[in-house]
Amino acid sequence: MSETMGSGRGPAGSPPVTEQVVGQLQGADTRLMTIMESLIRHLHGFVEDVRPTAAEWEAGLAFLARTGSFCTPTRQEFVLLSDMLGLTTLVDDVNNQGPADMTPSSVEGPFHSVAPPRELGDLIAAGPEWGRAESAVIHGTVQDCHGNRLPGAILDVWQADDKGHYDTQDAEQPEGNLRGLFTTDENGEYWFRTVKPASYPVPMDGPAGDMLRAMGRHPMRPGHLHIRVEAAGHHTLTTHVFVNDDPYLDSDAAFAVKPEIIVDFEPREDQASIERYGMDGPYLDVTFDIRLATESEMKR
Amino acid sequence: MSETMGSGRGPAGSPPVTEQVVGQLQGADTRLMTIMESLIRHLHGFVEDVRPTAAEWEAGLAFLARTGSFCTPTRQEFVLLSDMLGLTTLVDDVNNQGPADMTPSSVEGPFHSVAPPRELGDLIAAGPEWGRAESAVIHGTVQDCHGNRLPGAILDVWQADDKGHYDTQDAEQPEGNLRGLFTTDENGEYWFRTVKPASYPVPMDGPAGDMLRAMGRHPMRPGHLHIRVEAAGHHTLTTHVFVNDDPYLDSDAAFAVKPEIIVDFEPREDQASIERYGMDGPYLDVTFDIRLATESEMKR
Repeated sequence: MSETMGSGRGPAGSPPVTEQVVGQLQGADTRLMTIMESLIRHLHGFVEDVRPTAAEWEAGLAFLARTGSFCTPTRQEFVLLSDMLGLTTLVDDVNNQGPADMTPSSVEGPFHSVAPPRELGDLIAAGPEWGRAESAVIHGTVQDCHGNRLPGAILDVWQADDKGHYDTQDAEQPEGNLRGLFTTDENGEYWFRTVKPASYPVPMDGPAGDMLRAMGRHPMRPGHLHIRVEAAGHHTLTTHVFVNDDPYLDSDAAFAVKPEIIVDFEPREDQASIERYGMDGPYLDVTFDIRLATESEMKR
Repeated sequence: MSETMGSGRGPAGSPPVTEQVVGQLQGADTRLMTIMESLIRHLHGFVEDVRPTAAEWEAGLAFLARTGSFCTPTRQEFVLLSDMLGLTTLVDDVNNQGPADMTPSSVEGPFHSVAPPRELGDLIAAGPEWGRAESAVIHGTVQDCHGNRLPGAILDVWQADDKGHYDTQDAEQPEGNLRGLFTTDENGEYWFRTVKPASYPVPMDGPAGDMLRAMGRHPMRPGHLHIRVEAAGHHTLTTHVFVNDDPYLDSDAAFAVKPEIIVDFEPREDQASIERYGMDGPYLDVTFDIRLATESEMKR
């Protein structure tokens, strides 16, 4: 018994019970054992750092149980906790490190769904937001990290409307509204018409909302589009495109903002531009060029 | 924006997103902010260490949601996870560090309930286990850490039977069976009659069971009694008394075993001993002396 119950401390001065728990790991799945050892050491380190009282620990476990009680087939409150604590962004980051020139990835979020195929130039805003919101044209190129254009790349685009709602949350929007699948042309270019997305709050009626309030934080996500880009031979990129005049860029509740994916929505009033994109009046012009890495250029 | 979204790394080389999340902590409850900063740093450190794939992270969050779905008013599966990962023991340890001579604490567990007051020498085993199990006498003294006996100390005792069941889990046991409140006599002594407790498994039908199986661990807790001791002017001690010939002492699923709280169940067959405790034949004799610290002797 002395080996497992001695008072000697382990790596980095860990307490004996930490070494006992790690010492009992004997599962066959070595990846899972690696994950569990790290999880055990970090959770024990957390307890050693903050020295929670029994009442504090009980409150923490009750919070987790309450979070579980908010989970349904269509709402995963633990995903929301992960988003609000920056963990989803960090997991995304560790899996998507590429060359410096690559467009950075950003979290997918919970609102992706199958998008309708569209033609370049199509209007993806066919709901009540059209006519009500500022109209916009989003255009750019898809390239590799060496400046070569990528024809035939598939862009999967989804966004919320000017009230911050996705079609799947809003009975007034037609199915597939503000979504689209586009294919770059022979020059690796894409363009489509839409409306300027608005900032919106994450759900605040559950434990994640309680946590945000306790941390003194607001629930807002700055206005953004989501874009996923697939091109043969390249690492699929899932990212955001953020509106550069949004007041929440510095405090995105999901920590998904990166400087390279903030874009100008530039007002255009000249007739040549209006006609070029088939707009019926002034609009906001957005250039967003996307650079993909090959799988072998990605850092592992 | 450059302050919060720069690429500079923080303390111990933490990633920028970690500093962003910590930087958003602005709640009024400073204790909670301390806890959240440590939690954020440790969870981010865990992600940086194991670099989970998106699928692994999703599986982890799904595991937590499933754990939530097993929580009911009478079952808190997150408490069981905490127990099985040694976290409950560590929280107990950080809150109960006293002088070297103090009897070490051990976790309370989920089976405490209000015990019936008893007279010294009473038999607490009045259910079907009596006559079926090995009978035992538990006796000892309650002292301070300087050898002074403590008359009038209250012992709250609870245990499972020879099949590993507590009265609250077993319709065949009368209410209050294998529980008792005892008061030490003028010499600071206590004694009572019972049966030898058996090892038993924790619940394996939920996520905690899945986790134990994945870690290659068994669900057994070695046979034990629980004792909580209160004495005026002293720190209340909650501890276990473990049976020294139990095969699971080295691998308690809840990591509650400490060398000082393992005791011999010594067979006694001599008539003087049998008559002394009013037994009707051979029994197992257990001496367990308890040493309490004053509140001012406890380490904070």
